[in-house]
Amino acid sequence: MSKYNEQLSHLQVPNEKEIPQELQEIFDGHVEKQLEQNGFVNNLFKVLPLNAAQYKGFLDFKYSLFNEETCYLSTADKEMIGLVVSSTNSCSYCLTTHSDILRGLTKNPGWVDQLTYNYRSAKLTDKQRALCDYAYRTTRYPNEITTKEVDLLREAGFNDHEVLEAAFTVGFFNYTNRWVSTIGAIANEGHYGHNR
Amino acid sequence: MSKYNEQLSHLQVPNEKEIPQELQEIFDGHVEKQLEQNGFVNNLFKVLPLNAAQYKGFLDFKYSLFNEETCYLSTADKEMIGLVVSSTNSCSYCLTTHSDILRGLTKNPGWVDQLTYNYRSAKLTDKQRALCDYAYRTTRYPNEITTKEVDLLREAGFNDHEVLEAAFTVGFFNYTNRWVSTIGAIANEGHYGHNR
Amino acid sequence: MSKYNEQLSHLQVPNEKEIPQELQEIFDGHVEKQLEQNGFVNNLFKVLPLNAAQYKGFLDFKYSLFNEETCYLSTADKEMIGLVVSSTNSCSYCLTTHSDILRGLTKNPGWVDQLTYNYRSAKLTDKQRALCDYAYRTTRYPNEITTKEVDLLREAGFNDHEVLEAAFTVGFFNYTNRWVSTIGAIANEGHYGHNR
Amino acid sequence: MSKYNEQLSHLQVPNEKEIPQELQEIFDGHVEKQLEQNGFVNNLFKVLPLNAAQYKGFLDFKYSLFNEETCYLSTADKEMIGLVVSSTNSCSYCLTTHSDILRGLTKNPGWVDQLTYNYRSAKLTDKQRALCDYAYRTTRYPNEITTKEVDLLREAGFNDHEVLEAAFTVGFFNYTNRWVSTIGAIANEGHYGHNR
Amino acid sequence: MSKYNEQLSHLQVPNEKEIPQELQEIFDGHVEKQLEQNGFVNNLFKVLPLNAAQYKGFLDFKYSLFNEETCYLSTADKEMIGLVVSSTNSCSYCLTTHSDILRGLTKNPGWVDQLTYNYRSAKLTDKQRALCDYAYRTTRYPNEITTKEVDLLREAGFNDHEVLEAAFTVGFFNYTNRWVSTIGAIANEGHYGHNR
Amino acid sequence: MSKYNEQLSHLQVPNEKEIPQELQEIFDGHVEKQLEQNGFVNNLFKVLPLNAAQYKGFLDFKYSLFNEETCYLSTADKEMIGLVVSSTNSCSYCLTTHSDILRGLTKNPGWVDQLTYNYRSAKLTDKQRALCDYAYRTTRYPNEITTKEVDLLREAGFNDHEVLEAAFTVGFFNYTNRWVSTIGAIANEGHYGHNR
Repeated sequence: MSKYNEQLSHLQVPNEKEIPQELQEIFDGHVEKQLEQNGFVNNLFKVLPLNAAQYKGFLDFKYSLFNEETCYLSTADKEMIGLVVSSTNSCSYCLTTHSDILRGLTKNPGWVDQLTYNYRSAKLTDKQRALCDYAYRTTRYPNEITTKEVDLLREAGFNDHEVLEAAFTVGFFNYTNRWVSTIGAIANEGHYGHNR
Repeated sequence: MSKYNEQLSHLQVPNEKEIPQELQEIFDGHVEKQLEQNGFVNNLFKVLPLNAAQYKGFLDFKYSLFNEETCYLSTADKEMIGLVVSSTNSCSYCLTTHSDILRGLTKNPGWVDQLTYNYRSAKLTDKQRALCDYAYRTTRYPNEITTKEVDLLREAGFNDHEVLEAAFTVGFFNYTNRWVSTIGAIANEGHYGHNR
Repeated sequence: MSKYNEQLSHLQVPNEKEIPQELQEIFDGHVEKQLEQNGFVNNLFKVLPLNAAQYKGFLDFKYSLFNEETCYLSTADKEMIGLVVSSTNSCSYCLTTHSDILRGLTKNPGWVDQLTYNYRSAKLTDKQRALCDYAYRTTRYPNEITTKEVDLLREAGFNDHEVLEAAFTVGFFNYTNRWVSTIGAIANEGHYGHNR
Repeated sequence: MSKYNEQLSHLQVPNEKEIPQELQEIFDGHVEKQLEQNGFVNNLFKVLPLNAAQYKGFLDFKYSLFNEETCYLSTADKEMIGLVVSSTNSCSYCLTTHSDILRGLTKNPGWVDQLTYNYRSAKLTDKQRALCDYAYRTTRYPNEITTKEVDLLREAGFNDHEVLEAAFTVGFFNYTNRWVSTIGAIANEGHYGHNR
Repeated sequence: MSKYNEQLSHLQVPNEKEIPQELQEIFDGHVEKQLEQNGFVNNLFKVLPLNAAQYKGFLDFKYSLFNEETCYLSTADKEMIGLVVSSTNSCSYCLTTHSDILRGLTKNPGWVDQLTYNYRSAKLTDKQRALCDYAYRTTRYPNEITTKEVDLLREAGFNDHEVLEAAFTVGFFNYTNRWVSTIGAIANEGHYGHNR
Repeated sequence: MSKYNEQLSHLQVPNEKEIPQELQEIFDGHVEKQLEQNGFVNNLFKVLPLNAAQYKGFLDFKYSLFNEETCYLSTADKEMIGLVVSSTNSCSYCLTTHSDILRGLTKNPGWVDQLTYNYRSAKLTDKQRALCDYAYRTTRYPNEITTKEVDLLREAGFNDHEVLEAAFTVGFFNYTNRWVSTIGAIANEGHYGHNR
């Protein structure tokens, strides 16, 4: 029996035989780590091996933006950006899984819920608000972006490494939102009550 | 004198000394390859080393979506998707560099210009039109995505590997559009008349 | 000491002395009932007595739409509509309190979270989907409403009493969303984890 | 023969026998009053008894916002808000009946027509303009509401009772606009030339 | 004393001395004709001579689209299109003057008011509805225009001369709406009650 | 054989016999002039004679806005406005032909391409930027136009003749964009590489 026998998106399930062994081992590693940490698995892990090399590309890409050793912004700030972007795009799956992560990081589930509903209702520092406003504007009105965006982030106290990372992060969630909503990935039920 | 002494975006130039040697060699390899192929260098190569690890992440991510050995859609179809997304988001830099690439692939600069202006004016096969319509809708109206998107792509003749790749590709350009427009990258003048 | 000494919105706190005794008694009754049922009080009860007669008008209005003896749709269906409208308008307070109510009614917190993020991701019967689609369209595109709206609800199996009630309900949440977001009401922390 | 034999909306006509006598008497009272004042009847009076208890709820709700004894803003200012909201939502029925009312109050039909077309073209005091701008912004961009809204109204000279009432009023017309446009109520021909 | 001494827009008044005599005579002819027909003058006649040659260009252009000898659609149908476009763009001045004209043509002021509020509420033949839908869509969503537009107009019974004229007419009002709203032309009070 | 035997739009080709001789001569004159200047003919010349008198109206109207003897702004500035408007409306044909003209005027094809993609990425003087911002705002948000538009143009250094001409020009391209996109005019292949 295949590892990938559950229908967790609109797409056909991955065919285990088509997946290069080297990649399969990496995927299995992630699954084991998730199980250990959370007791359940983010369902994308069972959907995305359909296009194994691209799935690996996604994992590495995500790592490059969330690897704390080479990053400039905190993971919590980037997860906050992720919720603002995903809320603006109404990406249910992304809001589900990333609100879980941010609840884990902040131990403040009410504040995280506010971010998923409308960040303007959440208590934010000036720096956080600048990040959220930036994330909203560039997600909703991409054609109206001007030099003002960098100016405002600098004025809020961010250096240029951080500005670039914020921009990459807004981009990252605009990327995930499109394909996750398209394939209709079904979130693991475990997320909804986790870290509350 | 530094390799990165030109001001080609709103951000400060990269500090060569902060870049790990291993990464610098990879970046240099890309630059040499570009010079050889085009006679000039895409300016992002001089801007993005500011956040070297993330820049490497971007390069690998892009490779995973455009590596012809592991991909399902043609590069030309993905570049076409890229122009539709970038036109919807009015990303000048992305339209400049990717129209150059697609002119090179198709030898049809007029058709490529039409895609940058409004894909509805370009002559398209039914399959191409399905990809373009999909790219437009999910870029502009991400909150209105339903199961219809996958259905329409399948009806147009795409298999599920291709559907997932199309979704990743729409996502990829929604990612690049945000940060490229934010940092105000200046395109190399060489692009505009290249491959015409 | 006043009953209304907490700053729970952008507006000044109500002055207990300006509130007609008859109305104060009614408000107190609601508060007691809430305390008994939930153990905490919806903060609007401490904000809206600022305009006592209008607050009474709101309470009666709400009652007329949710009184099960004279209504045609189920309360759960109307709360579902409320989440769709409030999500479309990104009203944080309304999403907080009404998701709590719907969790209580359905005992399905994951499904309720999906409705707050994007109803298109939630498992819905055809009738529920027709209500949600109707709520979304008329909230977002009010100027494009045509006779098609009634036709679609009838086709989904609703009679005209139900259609009118659905229309009133969509209207009701478009009403609350505007003033709640304007006054910046702060939701009681108790809501976020309640009924989970 | 029934009182409700005219087809004045997309919905079926009310069945007089289903209406509790107590409510029918209230409705009859309103009709008589209208006939006396205007010589004709607002057609909603013949449509909404379909859901008698909810119709009563609407009448009481409206009364709470327009009862001059307990309200803070003038009726004319609230009717002005109503036209801005209804014009933003393109609600034909609401524009028809409320422009009639405001013509009656102001004896200035040209100014009222301007409000129905675009309030920016009408001569307004600074306080009126603040109300109109507020009504427009919160109607069209509900997700972008911030604390700025209350600040701007206060700066224009409104106290917090008035701010809350303005917010309720914007909400009220966002409520009526949705259901009136949905049911396709046909305005009484008498309104168009009345009070000119 | 100058003919142009009234401040009827945001712009400076025309300087009579700068206007070529030949053009001034033409403008005077239009004013006389208006006075004769309506008893008052459309205020643009006192504003636009600021750029005399361009004003002449506007008059001739308008004539080419409304000259009954060379046109294919009725003037009433084109004025109806004009109200739909101007309502979509909320151009107060255009709605004021063109509703006056259409009231004169149709002797049906209520129907004309409905067109200014929301054409979907007005009684329309299938052909009229096709014209109005076309005018709305291409005004609001110009980037989404496809071959469907011509197909739908043909299906509704229009020949290609009429389709082209409808397209020119939608364009014409999208032209006038921009500059009229920009310069803030003040409509002659006489229009509001005229032809009622 | 007819002059008009090519299918260059969605509409039927003009019938040469229906065109008044006087107009045909004018049209022929334009074609000859184009051939002489460019070596090819803008295809609208073969499409628009379908409605000959209206086509003549368009030619005269255009002349009134671009005749250098009676105009106040430079032709290049107006072509720049034209690209901003046409890009905002995604009018492929207009972007094709007017970018060709502006390339001819400026000898700067890269800068012109930037205008077609997103004027915010192009190097602009403060006065040019004011024109472009004005063109964008009034094209995209016509209902939000206020007196601020004239103020901003004056502050940038434009006199009232120029402001009115800028407003007419924005209007002109909002006119052409609608009907050109509707009829699906096919641009002459010669444009794409011309003036590069």
